[in-house]
Amino acid sequence: MNQSNKQFSALRGAARNSPESGIVEVINYGREREGLIPLWAGEGDLPTPQFICDAATRSLAAGETFYTWQRGIPELRQALADYHNRHYPGNFTDERFYVTGSGMQAIQVAIQSIAGEGDEIIVPTPAWPNFTAALELNGGVPVCVPMRFGNKGWQLDLEELFDAVTDKTRAIFFNSPSNPAGWTASLDELKAVLDFAREKGIWIISDEVYNRFYYGDSEYAPSFYEIVEDDDLILFVNTFSKNWAMTGWRIGWISCHPRLGGVMENIIHYNTSGVAAFMQRAAVTAVEEGEEFVRYQIARAREGREIVREALSKSPRIRFAPPDGAFYQLFQIEGFEDTSKLGLQLVDEANIGVVPGHAFGPGAEQFNRLCFARDADQMREAMRRLMDWVAKIS
Amino acid sequence: MNQSNKQFSALRGAARNSPESGIVEVINYGREREGLIPLWAGEGDLPTPQFICDAATRSLAAGETFYTWQRGIPELRQALADYHNRHYPGNFTDERFYVTGSGMQAIQVAIQSIAGEGDEIIVPTPAWPNFTAALELNGGVPVCVPMRFGNKGWQLDLEELFDAVTDKTRAIFFNSPSNPAGWTASLDELKAVLDFAREKGIWIISDEVYNRFYYGDSEYAPSFYEIVEDDDLILFVNTFSKNWAMTGWRIGWISCHPRLGGVMENIIHYNTSGVAAFMQRAAVTAVEEGEEFVRYQIARAREGREIVREALSKSPRIRFAPPDGAFYQLFQIEGFEDTSKLGLQLVDEANIGVVPGHAFGPGAEQFNRLCFARDADQMREAMRRLMDWVAKIS
Repeated sequence: MNQSNKQFSALRGAARNSPESGIVEVINYGREREGLIPLWAGEGDLPTPQFICDAATRSLAAGETFYTWQRGIPELRQALADYHNRHYPGNFTDERFYVTGSGMQAIQVAIQSIAGEGDEIIVPTPAWPNFTAALELNGGVPVCVPMRFGNKGWQLDLEELFDAVTDKTRAIFFNSPSNPAGWTASLDELKAVLDFAREKGIWIISDEVYNRFYYGDSEYAPSFYEIVEDDDLILFVNTFSKNWAMTGWRIGWISCHPRLGGVMENIIHYNTSGVAAFMQRAAVTAVEEGEEFVRYQIARAREGREIVREALSKSPRIRFAPPDGAFYQLFQIEGFEDTSKLGLQLVDEANIGVVPGHAFGPGAEQFNRLCFARDADQMREAMRRLMDWVAKIS
Repeated sequence: MNQSNKQFSALRGAARNSPESGIVEVINYGREREGLIPLWAGEGDLPTPQFICDAATRSLAAGETFYTWQRGIPELRQALADYHNRHYPGNFTDERFYVTGSGMQAIQVAIQSIAGEGDEIIVPTPAWPNFTAALELNGGVPVCVPMRFGNKGWQLDLEELFDAVTDKTRAIFFNSPSNPAGWTASLDELKAVLDFAREKGIWIISDEVYNRFYYGDSEYAPSFYEIVEDDDLILFVNTFSKNWAMTGWRIGWISCHPRLGGVMENIIHYNTSGVAAFMQRAAVTAVEEGEEFVRYQIARAREGREIVREALSKSPRIRFAPPDGAFYQLFQIEGFEDTSKLGLQLVDEANIGVVPGHAFGPGAEQFNRLCFARDADQMREAMRRLMDWVAKIS
């Protein structure tokens, strides 16, 4: 055995087999390309607003550089309660909210709190790959239930979802509006899922990160907050990344019944031991003063969605449906159903960054994802490059 | 079953049983006490130096608020390589270093990379409780090997350590200089441990966080860097918290053979997806320009250690030995060997914060830990309060 194999094979299997994210693969490939328009990551082109950054700067200048509350500073937990009271039905207290070092970590903490070796969690796909990868890293088993793309766009068959439950099932991971499909459950669908979970005694992990980015008739996508009761087995995971353009900060939160809070705090403690106080000050400012910015971002995403719709509609070779929520567009190019290297090819040949669908698990392997939360002119230019490339390869 | 039990008992066992840190317990109890001198946490009283904070502020102002490299920005990885080349034997490249969201996370990533359900890791105790708690959260089993306190201070019997190996052993966690005992392995002891690990084919996780805080004849405590070879199974975990007074920032690093880097990056990705770029800029400045500050902190800790030594020596009822490294003092008060509530009692009755030894696993249950990395006047006042209390309860 050579030395390389010796160290590598001494790693734990679940670590050795942990997949490189198909998103990161493309980004690492094209990161330094001159003039490339990056539609690959789940972030827009706006930096965090100045007034949010300023709050962090003030806190740093005031010397808030020491250890702080593992569960989050009281001011941020209260600000999150106030935010939820403003935007969702129910009566939220600060004791529901636990600050995490990213939405990703909120998911990790949720997984660690309910699922270990051999436990199954059901995941409608296509899905953001990080959930299944995080679960596998914890020894758990993702059970994917593929959506189907048809005349009505992306559809999830709830009967298939329910049929996937076994005696090892611990939870359903539910991301609505979804990344990458933009699929958005109706309130009736949420009710059906909740009823089913109650009956089976399994958890729901609800990732409502994109709840505000909704293109339907109301201001918000349907939310489990509208129907949950006090004793439901549900954990909400969320992030500051999208609403407030804070992707790079790595701050998120878990919302759960306060009686589970001690466990959440301990798990956070043994993962990263909390979030920098000066970052949390910025998050407080974001939640308390950032509503106008959130609405601006949503309007911008709506315009980006329309630009994409118009562009893609021009070619009969492209299959897609405008998403109901989130800020991604899945699209399939006739003749390029094998997308395994298409992301890298589009970097080289069209100078745009998109993610091949195989990165998102079963269901969208023949599609590609782009993020349209960008400046309208850039979106137009990106779509021009894409459609020129499509025309050229015809 | 009442509702409270229903949710709580639906959690995963390892989550439900995850212990509250004995350190956090005391801190949460006494955090708001007026005038309390906190010697409980592993941090000093100096905020992060201005020049380090300024680097973060500049980065924020420049709009570095987007997603960045999961493995750490190239500049920080290079700065870490340069730092190690200045301070340790060997030839370090940037490819050895993976930036983590705290030293705690470096430990989590190390555990996740080598140990899962049922795997054992040997831990000399007393030890910082977070390692064993993090291991248990991952389904692993800590096997504690208690040190003993005698006339020569704290001693670890290497034969006992080696005898603890079973066919389930995946690693030895080695923290020298140690928190909380300040016990510091000699180079011969490190060699013996490394030889043993090589023979058995098990990993070493080396936590050398306190390597620079050493009160022996040389400027550094003995380090595994002095003896490791290219193909050894070893992961180094470290943090910016102590050397550069950045406890609240939550930045650390893993150092490992570059061939393991892809795995480290993936695990980081599925835990928190990297560290804020503007925090990493501050870390670059810390490593590149912070050497004078590190030396100042070490000198300060040395003085704190002496103040503690002088004070504790005055009572025949106190058992202790000045530590060889790190910046903690363990001490036992005759008649108060049951320390289970002593930390809370000293908050109430002496207005100082110390941590009872039971927080650190087997070996130091009858001792208490204080941190002496503080201003000399404050340390004198804290020791006056402690010794007055000891005199009063006699």
